Amino acid sequence: MSVSVFEHPFLSGLLGDEEVAAFFSAEADLKAMLAFEGALAAAEAEAGLIPEAAVSAVAEAVASFQPDWAKLRDGTTRDGVVVPELVRQLRAAVGEPHARHVHFGATSQDVIDTSLAIRMGRALDILERRIDEVIDALDALNARDGKIEVMAHTRMQAALPVAASRKILSWRQPLVRHVDGLSEVFWDADLLSLGGAVGTQDLLGERKDAIRRKVAQDLKVRDPILARHSERDGVVVLADWLSLVTGSLGKMGQDMVLAAQSEVGEIKIKSGGGSSAMPHKVNPVGAEILVTLARFNATLVSGMHQSLVHENERSGSAWTLEWMLLPQMVVAAGAALRTAVDLVGNIAFVSK
Amino acid sequence: MSVSVFEHPFLSGLLGDEEVAAFFSAEADLKAMLAFEGALAAAEAEAGLIPEAAVSAVAEAVASFQPDWAKLRDGTTRDGVVVPELVRQLRAAVGEPHARHVHFGATSQDVIDTSLAIRMGRALDILERRIDEVIDALDALNARDGKIEVMAHTRMQAALPVAASRKILSWRQPLVRHVDGLSEVFWDADLLSLGGAVGTQDLLGERKDAIRRKVAQDLKVRDPILARHSERDGVVVLADWLSLVTGSLGKMGQDMVLAAQSEVGEIKIKSGGGSSAMPHKVNPVGAEILVTLARFNATLVSGMHQSLVHENERSGSAWTLEWMLLPQMVVAAGAALRTAVDLVGNIAFVSK
Amino acid sequence: MSVSVFEHPFLSGLLGDEEVAAFFSAEADLKAMLAFEGALAAAEAEAGLIPEAAVSAVAEAVASFQPDWAKLRDGTTRDGVVVPELVRQLRAAVGEPHARHVHFGATSQDVIDTSLAIRMGRALDILERRIDEVIDALDALNARDGKIEVMAHTRMQAALPVAASRKILSWRQPLVRHVDGLSEVFWDADLLSLGGAVGTQDLLGERKDAIRRKVAQDLKVRDPILARHSERDGVVVLADWLSLVTGSLGKMGQDMVLAAQSEVGEIKIKSGGGSSAMPHKVNPVGAEILVTLARFNATLVSGMHQSLVHENERSGSAWTLEWMLLPQMVVAAGAALRTAVDLVGNIAFVSK
Amino acid sequence: MSVSVFEHPFLSGLLGDEEVAAFFSAEADLKAMLAFEGALAAAEAEAGLIPEAAVSAVAEAVASFQPDWAKLRDGTTRDGVVVPELVRQLRAAVGEPHARHVHFGATSQDVIDTSLAIRMGRALDILERRIDEVIDALDALNARDGKIEVMAHTRMQAALPVAASRKILSWRQPLVRHVDGLSEVFWDADLLSLGGAVGTQDLLGERKDAIRRKVAQDLKVRDPILARHSERDGVVVLADWLSLVTGSLGKMGQDMVLAAQSEVGEIKIKSGGGSSAMPHKVNPVGAEILVTLARFNATLVSGMHQSLVHENERSGSAWTLEWMLLPQMVVAAGAALRTAVDLVGNIAFVSK
Repeated sequence: MSVSVFEHPFLSGLLGDEEVAAFFSAEADLKAMLAFEGALAAAEAEAGLIPEAAVSAVAEAVASFQPDWAKLRDGTTRDGVVVPELVRQLRAAVGEPHARHVHFGATSQDVIDTSLAIRMGRALDILERRIDEVIDALDALNARDGKIEVMAHTRMQAALPVAASRKILSWRQPLVRHVDGLSEVFWDADLLSLGGAVGTQDLLGERKDAIRRKVAQDLKVRDPILARHSERDGVVVLADWLSLVTGSLGKMGQDMVLAAQSEVGEIKIKSGGGSSAMPHKVNPVGAEILVTLARFNATLVSGMHQSLVHENERSGSAWTLEWMLLPQMVVAAGAALRTAVDLVGNIAFVSK
Repeated sequence: MSVSVFEHPFLSGLLGDEEVAAFFSAEADLKAMLAFEGALAAAEAEAGLIPEAAVSAVAEAVASFQPDWAKLRDGTTRDGVVVPELVRQLRAAVGEPHARHVHFGATSQDVIDTSLAIRMGRALDILERRIDEVIDALDALNARDGKIEVMAHTRMQAALPVAASRKILSWRQPLVRHVDGLSEVFWDADLLSLGGAVGTQDLLGERKDAIRRKVAQDLKVRDPILARHSERDGVVVLADWLSLVTGSLGKMGQDMVLAAQSEVGEIKIKSGGGSSAMPHKVNPVGAEILVTLARFNATLVSGMHQSLVHENERSGSAWTLEWMLLPQMVVAAGAALRTAVDLVGNIAFVSK
Repeated sequence: MSVSVFEHPFLSGLLGDEEVAAFFSAEADLKAMLAFEGALAAAEAEAGLIPEAAVSAVAEAVASFQPDWAKLRDGTTRDGVVVPELVRQLRAAVGEPHARHVHFGATSQDVIDTSLAIRMGRALDILERRIDEVIDALDALNARDGKIEVMAHTRMQAALPVAASRKILSWRQPLVRHVDGLSEVFWDADLLSLGGAVGTQDLLGERKDAIRRKVAQDLKVRDPILARHSERDGVVVLADWLSLVTGSLGKMGQDMVLAAQSEVGEIKIKSGGGSSAMPHKVNPVGAEILVTLARFNATLVSGMHQSLVHENERSGSAWTLEWMLLPQMVVAAGAALRTAVDLVGNIAFVSK
Repeated sequence: MSVSVFEHPFLSGLLGDEEVAAFFSAEADLKAMLAFEGALAAAEAEAGLIPEAAVSAVAEAVASFQPDWAKLRDGTTRDGVVVPELVRQLRAAVGEPHARHVHFGATSQDVIDTSLAIRMGRALDILERRIDEVIDALDALNARDGKIEVMAHTRMQAALPVAASRKILSWRQPLVRHVDGLSEVFWDADLLSLGGAVGTQDLLGERKDAIRRKVAQDLKVRDPILARHSERDGVVVLADWLSLVTGSLGKMGQDMVLAAQSEVGEIKIKSGGGSSAMPHKVNPVGAEILVTLARFNATLVSGMHQSLVHENERSGSAWTLEWMLLPQMVVAAGAALRTAVDLVGNIAFVSK
């Protein structure tokens, strides 16, 4: 099936990103959710909240867990979240006497939000590395072609000649700022969620701080002390950043498309796309796609901001909306960066 | 993989729609594209543009076509559209001497837009039938519970009591209007595209009108005479309609969520969702999801309107953006209708 | 003050539309709201609901009404709607014994929504007339320049030459469809609202149908029988239409910008904009602005769709959001049409 | 006139913010633009680029400048920017022999973007101060009512009781983060623009660094070295921040609306709005408006991200779109904060 271009048999090569999309597979999600349950049990045992023996029972069940996918799907359809059914299956796998020690003191949102944070952290690492690759490619382009004179255009009219390096720099500098901004994005997005039913950590008892710290450490996410079940600014800041990245690449793509026009010819794209009706054409496909992905994320980011209006202690409506939008935005950013790395390595400014 | 909730192993039961999503599989797309190529050859032969013998050669190749998916993907990545590579494979399947008669006078956009129109027409049939089911379910609800007195709320405060039937009617009437509006939506969305390279139908010769009419008839789509390669209002009107449908259902869902609040209790949802931390809860999952899907389509519709700014005779950027948004909007509408049918059948107003 | 470009001392000439904006002045709103109260009193007296003598008392007060603007503002800030304070002032103007017959059986939303419908109807007449002017201007352009050969461009690359008439037609045809679609838009937007407190018309008694019909007739709006306080599809369909109009003009503007590029020179814009730093430039300002206005309405239309999720019998939040968006969309459409009429009359295709 | 709610005779009390809107008056814009021209002349004279005598001539003309508003409007309509006509008027005011030293080496975008930065800096100071006031008000609320037990709600169902302080904290903490994030927003938004015609600062000569530094210092903005004519991430990051602020307040408003429902009654709003048809009601107007403003900015932020796709060295289309959106977003944030300060001071949690 292929409603989504990101997982489509023939469109995903153009618009998708396998490496980044892998973090959003149900398998990757399950693995991270199970890791959460394992780490929680370990931390709770250390704090004396559940028996030591439960830890290895949970760890073994996690390691060998075989989900019943059909039941996970049915459970999600009924409950709106996968967790109640997942916990049921995991408890069955753990068996007695430790079944009831699984998921103790946690709530569905803890599991789901932490799983996202774990995977997002890894995805952001890849995006950051790729931004650096685009910057490097732009530096190489500048080193080779930077002194070529091109026409600057303002308001879509020829203005005055400038060195290509000025243009390249205007593509490069926003990317540098996006890399700089990433650590702040990370700070509020890559978080443990461990609040329990209504965010008060009640069942974690006196040693809740130690428990949270240990779970966070195990899962390599940050402990924000208070779970942010209903405070969604962290994921929105992340969405903003993703759309800034695709937007800056979209600007670069738009410029390349314009410079590569038949009548302008200031940029040559070495390998362009072919046409079914006009074999003579070389289409600037990669550059066009950067514009597409920019406008895609600029569209979706609005829904993420809408989801800030999150009712009460947990909103079924607003939270679910995030699930529909954020993974797509991450993969779109991945696809744009992948495309940009390739494109910048494949263009040349033309001396006249 | 499961970036998209619509094709996700466990989220798709909650947010997806198998029946509608099936029209957006790559297989369904391929089948419709091949049907286009077959119908085109038949019509062109009838008009004397290509040899009669080519028709059965193409028909046979179409009937037994086995795509090389990997090459379709590579071709799409290179060309931005699947058609050049698909035509290459189809021509190879047809073989000499008729290979060159495949796709004669058409362009990639003709194939892709017509394939969408064919499948969209069928998807809309399903959506229309389901709206009728929701209306029927609301009528049944009204027949049973319409006389129960409930509190009307304005500005989120209790106002005055009204009969439940007034509330039910306010959910029903917009749906009736959406059904009424569908034929107009259909008129400009369910179209043949047959314009050739730059929309002028040049290669179709003197008998181009007859050719178009026959192709349209074969494929059960309307012939708009001029291909609308760069006039995208038809698909945007369709997107608007989809978001109106989800919006009206979202309003109903929101009302149900509010009426089902523990403190209000004017609606009882027979089968609600469970919680991993609070077994006593019955969550109004279906109603919440209607709100989510409404806000999702309200977000995506913006990008469809952005794509109206379609450069020149064909825009790689703006057209591709449609592919990323429209299928999701259709499936979201399908999912909302599916959910609504179920939900309306499962609620009861409560007499006090 | 000039937060809004539409009412800005120097930006409004570029981006605004005085004629259309006039319908959205507070004065025009007040006048229409008072007309509603006058028509309501007349109809209610005819139906025997209030004394005949009240009609002339209300009519006189309406005719000579001098609002206390400061109190209207304070009242709106407190109540979220202007109507309670307006009715207070109008009742004071009417005086005893008829003060209490003012606004009988109506609610704030009846007054505000009907006032919008009255003014919208007139604004749409202007927009429709202007679309016809753009179509006429395109026909004149076609008659003069239609045979000039220009290059068709697909995916931003020169494709094949076509007659300018093909390009002109692709700008013209969507406008024809928008004119055709307007009557349907009108049908569900140009409506009387008369539902009373919770939409049930309770206080209007047995003769409510006659009352509604007469009020609608007086105010030249359609009577939908049931007030659509919480069914907002009518205004959303209108917003969609406005964004389709600006989108189609934005596509034309984008094409003109591209054809007018220094390196392309296929279109000459007779009077373009100047630059503060580069006196040699002639900027395609009008054409650029068409793109801007298209993207503006494509942005705002999303919020209109969000406002479909209208809670219960009247939502303070969602309804108010409409007020922030819809007037701007109408004026943007007006500005785009005004700009397009001027622009099409000022361009020439260039023979090579 | 009153297309915009922010400048509307009776809606602006509800939805506007006079203090913040003042920065977006044409007068304030003009004053900042003139300050730019004055500071530029002073710095260029110090660098020996223009005669010392020009400085006082320009300073005097700036101090006593009387704009011809009608011509500014005509010029903007023609040129797409006010600057060419403004410079013409200012040069006339300066007179010979120094007229030509006005605006030397600068371009329209330098003047306009710097004027925005100057005013935005001041507006952000106000917004920051108000966020602190909301935080203080929440702290006071917490000190008084924090121990009252309220029901936590997840998925719109009663979950478990919590102390009001937990709820208050979930409103407070995002605001603290927004204040923390402001300095980074400031860093890339509060910038001098001084690039000249195509962003290369060519006419500023050898001493361009000194000139820029001095102009920036005079105008109290940061010198980013390279003008960011076509790099728009700074203003988009600002727009994101504005929408985060309104979004977080919208979440608080939504919670208050829900808690103040007649059937819930966990929050009492001391002064609510009245109804024209139902005098018994007390409507949570301020809280509803917070939701409205959140959804408004969540809508507009999408267009700001679209404007990142800024063509070449300066885009007439994308840049102008910013002017239509950003001022509204700032005033909406101002209005939301003003409303929130008032609202938090007017609510009380109710002990049961």
